[in-house]
This record gives sequence, structure tokens and C-alpha cells, in this order.
Amino acid sequence: MATYSGTAAEILRQVRASRPVVHNITNYVVMNSTANVLLAMGASPIMAHAPEEVAEVVGLANSVVINIGTLSKSWIESMVLGSRVCHIAGKPFVLDPVGAGATKLRTRTATQIIEAATPTVIRGNASEIMALSPEGGITRGVDAVHHVDDACDAAHSIARALGTVVAVTGERDVVTDGNRSLVITGGHALLGYVTGTGCAASVVVGAFISQGSDPVEGTAAALAFFGLAGEWAAREADAPGSFWVKMLDALYAISPQDLESQARIQEA
Amino acid sequence: MATYSGTAAEILRQVRASRPVVHNITNYVVMNSTANVLLAMGASPIMAHAPEEVAEVVGLANSVVINIGTLSKSWIESMVLGSRVCHIAGKPFVLDPVGAGATKLRTRTATQIIEAATPTVIRGNASEIMALSPEGGITRGVDAVHHVDDACDAAHSIARALGTVVAVTGERDVVTDGNRSLVITGGHALLGYVTGTGCAASVVVGAFISQGSDPVEGTAAALAFFGLAGEWAAREADAPGSFWVKMLDALYAISPQDLESQARIQEA
Amino acid sequence: MATYSGTAAEILRQVRASRPVVHNITNYVVMNSTANVLLAMGASPIMAHAPEEVAEVVGLANSVVINIGTLSKSWIESMVLGSRVCHIAGKPFVLDPVGAGATKLRTRTATQIIEAATPTVIRGNASEIMALSPEGGITRGVDAVHHVDDACDAAHSIARALGTVVAVTGERDVVTDGNRSLVITGGHALLGYVTGTGCAASVVVGAFISQGSDPVEGTAAALAFFGLAGEWAAREADAPGSFWVKMLDALYAISPQDLESQARIQEA
Repeated sequence: MATYSGTAAEILRQVRASRPVVHNITNYVVMNSTANVLLAMGASPIMAHAPEEVAEVVGLANSVVINIGTLSKSWIESMVLGSRVCHIAGKPFVLDPVGAGATKLRTRTATQIIEAATPTVIRGNASEIMALSPEGGITRGVDAVHHVDDACDAAHSIARALGTVVAVTGERDVVTDGNRSLVITGGHALLGYVTGTGCAASVVVGAFISQGSDPVEGTAAALAFFGLAGEWAAREADAPGSFWVKMLDALYAISPQDLESQARIQEA
Repeated sequence: MATYSGTAAEILRQVRASRPVVHNITNYVVMNSTANVLLAMGASPIMAHAPEEVAEVVGLANSVVINIGTLSKSWIESMVLGSRVCHIAGKPFVLDPVGAGATKLRTRTATQIIEAATPTVIRGNASEIMALSPEGGITRGVDAVHHVDDACDAAHSIARALGTVVAVTGERDVVTDGNRSLVITGGHALLGYVTGTGCAASVVVGAFISQGSDPVEGTAAALAFFGLAGEWAAREADAPGSFWVKMLDALYAISPQDLESQARIQEA
Repeated sequence: MATYSGTAAEILRQVRASRPVVHNITNYVVMNSTANVLLAMGASPIMAHAPEEVAEVVGLANSVVINIGTLSKSWIESMVLGSRVCHIAGKPFVLDPVGAGATKLRTRTATQIIEAATPTVIRGNASEIMALSPEGGITRGVDAVHHVDDACDAAHSIARALGTVVAVTGERDVVTDGNRSLVITGGHALLGYVTGTGCAASVVVGAFISQGSDPVEGTAAALAFFGLAGEWAAREADAPGSFWVKMLDALYAISPQDLESQARIQEA
């Protein structure tokens, strides 16, 4: 455990020092809040979706996050293009399959993006990850109706089939490449009362995996950092409005040393 | 009055217990803030506008909110489609005609949505409601230039003509089905210094009318709850940034008992 | 210096008294936050981009802000149209060339908007302004990689060539029409950890130049006001989430008298 939290601290130190550019092709709901998450933690967000500039922006970026939370035809084209360009440019990218399983369009879009190029990391809630497995699942809206434990088999099989890292987040988080699995505990129930906290976790993963570490450990480190920020925030706020403000404050304030001593990452 | 506030408390209790899915086809400005309003109060928002998934998302939802705050051609098509699908699926829906009267496009779009299917509730400020009446009106931007009292006749005539519930919100709120009218007092002047507070009131109405109560009473209950949150927030904040944070906190913290004892709903 | 801060105070007084309508054709990331900035300071925002209503909305507005932060084909058309309509209607308008220099699309779009009609004010960070000068520059993402001093020559040459006012903001702000230059000090480093603070400065400029003052002085006044709000906020918050909340509070709370005594505007 010392190793994993030491790695987490080291990645946070690198992010703060290098201020990686994280390119987001993301949904309208969280554009502001995830940009603020990236800035608060020490990264540099750019939101851009025009097909005409996707290749150039990916070229500038240290990592990319593709999030399907609000879709329309032209956006889907940009996301699929973004996936392809990441592959060609060799940039790490995170797919957040928001609401996969809730509608055919979302499940199909997530699949198209994955077929265009395998994401470095796929992060979703239990229902979303189950929807992407061959066995499928049922999602109710964009909030999970399954527990993390329900989705572990799906996560393993997707990770193995695609050769990617899958992260299932919820009451605890599981990160797996199909062989090795890490479990992260932390976070707080108030995260469920603020929009886009899953999307926010994804952009933190995006920032962390830009630093070239092993993606299982990098993803686990990111989720431990995000969960810790939730815990810090919950010590200062007992309702969702104040909680989110304090969450941004914590993402800024948590030092690598804090993360090393307080991250809770263990082998599954 | 005990009856109305008792009903309000009961609906809030049901919302908290059942966590209704509220589907929003809404404007870019308030997507984040209204999702946060719904989550804070105990509902589950989904934002989706692609024509390809509107029918499925309406099918998942317990109610729908259509808000015309930022328009373009493809969005108007989705909104009109959403209206029709709500009718077919028998889902209650709220229309928020943001800026009706300010431009022909907005007045025409609101009319098209209404013609596609009669909304369960239309909620607007005085200028917007007057713009939808056959007599018309003048809106200056998206902020009201008329007082609630100016719009009562328009509200009654629209409600009677369409067989719907009309809510005019402002320094006090009036809810009418053309026969019966309820008046809600509360709220706070700082609501006028935060964007999308009218839109936020509309999504709270959406959550409340998902519970199957009489829509006049359900709408009045929602507006009393929202106004009370404004009053609670204003006790802890004296400027708009802090006020909105405390508003979200209050939407989370107000209990059914608080609402029963503090809601101010009366017959007109 | 008394003169400039006196002018600033007078413009703020006029804004608060007349509540100017500021029309924004802007990016998805900052639609909510810049609407809140305008409301908090006492103006009335409207966000609208449909080509069908641009002329009507410009007609209602006292000033217009065009911001290219998130582009797509149809939005670019609206922005170019907006620029033309401002010219025809004689409305002051601000161009915020977000990310100019980072991609060809952004540089070209900013150029197209300028060619459609000369903006009253162009406000950008050092990298963006340098990208618009004939000499060009390099931008890394949307955050500046150059210092304000690097961009002064570019600002002068653009201002002279176009007959416009150029504002370069950063660790200090420079406003010039190519002949006369004003320098504004203030602000706070935490502004760099919140998304859209440059965009927010642009909408404050939009509100200030709606009052008909000399645009160099009006722009300097707006930036002094915005920077002062940053300083006030930083006295009450030491991390980005809380800082932005206090920033909105300060934009609401700073009186014309406060601005007169605390603005720091001087000739270059």
C-alpha cells in the first residue's frame, strides 16, 4: 500500500510541476465543472469539439477525455474522430460512457468510440460498465442502479477483451486491466448529490495518466486523490452546494505528502 | 393553508423516497445548475436532446422539462418531438418559455411545442406568460419587465384555452388552471442576481408533478419549496455567489416537516 | 489616476442604474459563469446564438460579447453574423479570441469576425493577442504561455491597424488604442485556477462599454473593477472553489465609491 500511495504522490507532484494540457470532448452539463476540477488540481483544460480542430488540439494535449453525456450526431462524429486521432498520435485517452445502457444511442456511441481505438482507460459507474460488457445490463437514467461488486466481472472481461484498463466507481472503486485489480476506498455520499462527479473523476484520471505511469496505478492514484478530496470536503460541508465548493478547494490544497499518507489503495 | 402545505410536505416526502428521474431538454446556460438543483433536492436528472434517443429517455423518465433558453434549429426539432413523445407516453411535462416575447423565434418555438402537445404546466415570468397570450406582450431580454399582477389575466386565459396549468413567478407566484388559483409568497430578491433561477424553479416543478398529485397543488408546492430555499439561503448569505451555494444546501436540507410548517400557499 | 478611477466609478454607477442588456454569443464552458458575473455586477445577460434571432437580440442589447471558446461550423456563422449586425446596429461589441493561435480554426475564426466588422474592444491573454498580430505567436491550449509585456507591441499594432481598442490581460493588464495606453494592476493569482476568468473579464468590459464612455477608459475601468473583485475575493478565500464564490459576491458588493478609491489605473 505504501507503494501505491507513494506512486500517487509522485504523479500528483509531476502534474503540479508540468501542468499537463487535458483535452476534453465532453458533455454540456460538466464543461464548466470539469474545467474547474482540472484547473484546481493543477492541470490545464481545453474543451474543443470541432472536427476541423480535433487533430490539432489532440496534438497540443498530454491526454484526452471523451465523455458521451450529451450527444448529437455531429458530436458523435467528433468523438469517434477524437478516438482515432488519439490512437494515431499516441495520446492516452479516457472514455467516460455516461448513460451507456440507458439508451441504444449511448451504448452504440460508446462502442463506436471503442472500435475506433481502444481507450487507455474506461471509467464508468457499475451500470455503465455492465452495459458495455457482452452480457449487457440495465441503466436507469445516468445514475447507477447497480453496485460496484455487480460490475467486477464485466470490468474484468472488458479489460481483457480490449486490452484496456477499466475503472468502476461507486461506494468503492475498482480498477483492473483484467489481470491485476486495485481497490480504492474513500469518497463521500455527498458526491451523489452533485452533478458530474463521475465525469470529474474521469478528468482527474485523464490528468494522472498523462504522466506516463502504469495506467492501472495511475488510474487508482487519480481515484484515490479524487476520493480524498471528497473526504476533505465533507469535513467542512454537510450539504451539496458547499460540498462542491470545498471539493474544488481540496483538489487545490491536497499536497503530494497528504496524498501519500491518506490514499487508500489496495490490491483486490 | 394547512392543507396545501401538508400536500407540499407529502410530495417532497415522495420525491425523496422515490428519486424520480427528470428528463431535461434545456438550455446550455442552466444544464449544470438545474442538474444540481434536482440532485440536491433528491431527484435524478438526465439531460438529453438527440432526436435518436428522446423517446427512450422520456420512457425512462418520471417527468420532463422543456426549456427554450438557448435555441437552434436542431434543438427546436428535439423539443417539439419531446413534447409529442410526452403526450404519447403520458408523461407530465413542464414548458419553460424562456425569453418568449423577446424574439419571434422564441415565441414561435414555445407555440410550436404547445401545439405539439399541451404541457402539464407552463412556468414563466410575467413577460413570458403575457407573450404567450393572444394579447401578446413585450419582453426585454430574458428578465421580466412586467409584474406578476400584470400577467394574471394572461395566465388565466392561457390556462383555460389550453386546459393546462400556468405558473407566473416573480415577486410572488401565481398558479392557475383557469378556475382555481393559488398564490405563493416567499423567495428573496437575491434570486434575481443569479442566472437560471426561473429555470431552476421549473425543474423543481418537474420533480413535484412527477408524483401524480393535482398539478395546481403540485406546482404551488414546488414553488413554495423553492421560495423557502431562497429564504433559508438568504439567512446565510448576503451576495449572489454565496447565496446560490446556500440555495443548493437548503434544497437538500429542508425536510418535509420544515416545508409543512413554513410553506406559504393560499387561495387567490 | 483620480480621473480614471473617478470615471470607473461613474460607469459602475450607470451600469447599476440602467441594468444594461449584454448579449453573449459565447462558449459552452462559461455560459453559466459569465451570466452570473453580469447579474452579480448589476447587468442583464442574454445568451443567444440562433442566426434566426441574432439580429433581434442585438437590437435589444446595449452591447454584445462574442467569444470563440468552443467552436463549430454553425456557431462560427452566428458569430460572423453577430459581428456584422453589431456594426449595422451601431452596438459596441467585445471580441474574446479564446485560444487564437492554438488552432488554425480559432485564429481564422477570430480573423473572420474582425473582418466582418471591427470590434469595439478585443480582449485576450498575451498569447491570443500575439496570434492575431501579423507576426503571429504560439499558444499552448487556452492558457497563455506569454507574458503581458511580450504582447504590448502586438496590441499596439493591431489597435492601430484596425482602429480598435486592444486589452491584454494577465499578471497586469494593458489597454491601448495604439496611441494611448493604460495599465491596470490588481487581480490575484487564484484567478488562474478558475475556468473562464478571462471570459468573465470580457463580459465586464461588455457591460462597461455599453455606457458610451471612451472605450479605452471604459475597458480599463472594467478591468480595474474585475481585478479589484479578485483582490476582495482573495481576502476571504485561499482556494479556487471558495474564491470564485467570493468573486461573485465582490462583483455585487463593490460600490462605485469602493472602485473610485481602490482602482489602480495609470498611464503606460
